[in-house]
Amino acid sequence: MAMKTRNHQWLLKKRPTASEIIGPEHFDYVAGAMPLMGENEFLVRTLVLGTSPAQRAYVIEKRRFHAGVEIGEVMHGRGIGVVEASNNPNFKIGDWVAGSLGWQEYSVQRTGLGPRGTVDVASVQHVNSDIRPSSLHLGALGNAGYTALYGLEDIGEISPGKTVVISSAAGGVGAMAGQISKRYKCRTIGIAGGPEKGAWICDHAKYDAAIDYKNEDVGAALDRLCPDGIDIYFDNVGGTMLDTVLQRLAIGARIVLCGAISTEYLEHRPPGPAWYTELIYKRARMEGLVVWDQVKRYPEFQTKLKGWYDAGEIQAVDDISEGLETMPDALKSLFIGGNTGIKLVRVSDDPR
Amino acid sequence: MAMKTRNHQWLLKKRPTASEIIGPEHFDYVAGAMPLMGENEFLVRTLVLGTSPAQRAYVIEKRRFHAGVEIGEVMHGRGIGVVEASNNPNFKIGDWVAGSLGWQEYSVQRTGLGPRGTVDVASVQHVNSDIRPSSLHLGALGNAGYTALYGLEDIGEISPGKTVVISSAAGGVGAMAGQISKRYKCRTIGIAGGPEKGAWICDHAKYDAAIDYKNEDVGAALDRLCPDGIDIYFDNVGGTMLDTVLQRLAIGARIVLCGAISTEYLEHRPPGPAWYTELIYKRARMEGLVVWDQVKRYPEFQTKLKGWYDAGEIQAVDDISEGLETMPDALKSLFIGGNTGIKLVRVSDDPR
Repeated sequence: MAMKTRNHQWLLKKRPTASEIIGPEHFDYVAGAMPLMGENEFLVRTLVLGTSPAQRAYVIEKRRFHAGVEIGEVMHGRGIGVVEASNNPNFKIGDWVAGSLGWQEYSVQRTGLGPRGTVDVASVQHVNSDIRPSSLHLGALGNAGYTALYGLEDIGEISPGKTVVISSAAGGVGAMAGQISKRYKCRTIGIAGGPEKGAWICDHAKYDAAIDYKNEDVGAALDRLCPDGIDIYFDNVGGTMLDTVLQRLAIGARIVLCGAISTEYLEHRPPGPAWYTELIYKRARMEGLVVWDQVKRYPEFQTKLKGWYDAGEIQAVDDISEGLETMPDALKSLFIGGNTGIKLVRVSDDPR
Repeated sequence: MAMKTRNHQWLLKKRPTASEIIGPEHFDYVAGAMPLMGENEFLVRTLVLGTSPAQRAYVIEKRRFHAGVEIGEVMHGRGIGVVEASNNPNFKIGDWVAGSLGWQEYSVQRTGLGPRGTVDVASVQHVNSDIRPSSLHLGALGNAGYTALYGLEDIGEISPGKTVVISSAAGGVGAMAGQISKRYKCRTIGIAGGPEKGAWICDHAKYDAAIDYKNEDVGAALDRLCPDGIDIYFDNVGGTMLDTVLQRLAIGARIVLCGAISTEYLEHRPPGPAWYTELIYKRARMEGLVVWDQVKRYPEFQTKLKGWYDAGEIQAVDDISEGLETMPDALKSLFIGGNTGIKLVRVSDDPR
């Protein structure tokens, strides 16, 4: 294979302020030099990159979770890639890997030995190149699926017949959570913005019903759709919607706190859920989810999801942009409700 | 034994308004007639009555949990009594029982057959009359102890070496939670109002340290006392203190929501905990506790607590008022910080 001589990359140009939506203006698109492989290292061509609201947290001033990205550094981001050259016996040419490849066409990795290379990444893991297209490893059979599965099973304690409400239902995790809940024979209600997204989640993510928070009174809709209360709330947005749900919990309810995109990026922290005391009356539980704590269980998660996928019980719900140059807009879409399904960016074609 | 001819009782006179503290003005003290026993029934002399913030919920307009108390009806309340006459072969003269005896000297009970008698009570249960004084069955080896034990073990997932913070630490449940946490070899920090209560919880409830929320910055004190974060927060008060704790959680923290006395009885619902999103970052859990869901486990709880009590690892921390006539003031004390330890009312002497 003829090697390229330039490596297109997105570098962090400036940090978004607390109230700013992240987008193209915060990055520079450059044609960098191809990275050089050292001992034990291998060269990875990026196939597909994922997006996550958490990526905003990599670049803001007050960071959580992550090592941050410095100004001028390649933006961090999880992707799937293929090994194109290797000095490492464990990673052969043609192997597929998952990891923080960064917003770039090529990266050099040196797995298991801690941060190194052109992105600040601890390691990459092998993924099964028989599972195709590669986008599945970031979507239905990847982090979006893992997050929904772990949240529903381990935190939500899902079982057949429960009433499950999911916010940001047309987002990547929400679209997977709806499908998995339906696979569990639960009643699934999705909250999404606008009639198009409502139709989409019922058609593609197997929701029983949709609530359009932009045009409906969410509380009244929940009263109508969940007369016996809500058993599981998979919350991706926080804010006033969480308070609305808290007032309608069933006894023993479980709230999976996956995100708070509606408030977490505001300049001034808004008041919290005034009805949290319902957790007492309903003997209910609210628990936070960070899926990458479960990285050792990813193979187990993928095996389970693959079984359902092969049986046609869940399907891919990807929203793919073409080309690395679309990456900042792809991330931005998460914060403006611009995506429907799992927002991914195709960087290069999967090997045949 | 000479039977009395009058049965002193506290009847509900008027309901407290949303912002009113419950007290003597809401009740009438009357000398009623002795209740008459029917088939299968038995007469119980009240020995000791307990108090709980939840009792306020029995009488307010907008009720939760409970069948409410009607105007002119005997106030509901849990107590320990002795059977003085019986038409029921399962309850013999001299047996001790626990149940909702009501704020009165005598009650007629008909256990296992649903609501009946002078108080609206489903049933009473036998308690072991070898465990003396009877106040132990409401305190260290009763509901206060059960609440603390269940909350710490089942919800808090307590284990040795954890840092446990407890609000309303000088209250009945708080004083038991401190002792039980210390029995588990945890580091225990109690939050209470005023230097006297702080000294009391360290002397009597085995706390390692006290924070005086009336005279100290709770956040600064927690920073000093819990440099590695808070593993378990046993919350009896809610409000701003919960928000202060949320900002200082350790990874995997557990918040036991036992009550929200600081806000639950305000006329206007205050904002909720703005920092609830810390539950995500800290993979933490917040869960409500209602101890009477666990009534079948009370014998198991008592056996465990009795073992620790006999070994001198926990002790009674009762705050006992003398005489049924003190009952409304005893309840009021919970809402004004007037009690230190488990607030009980001695109604009549234990049989010898």
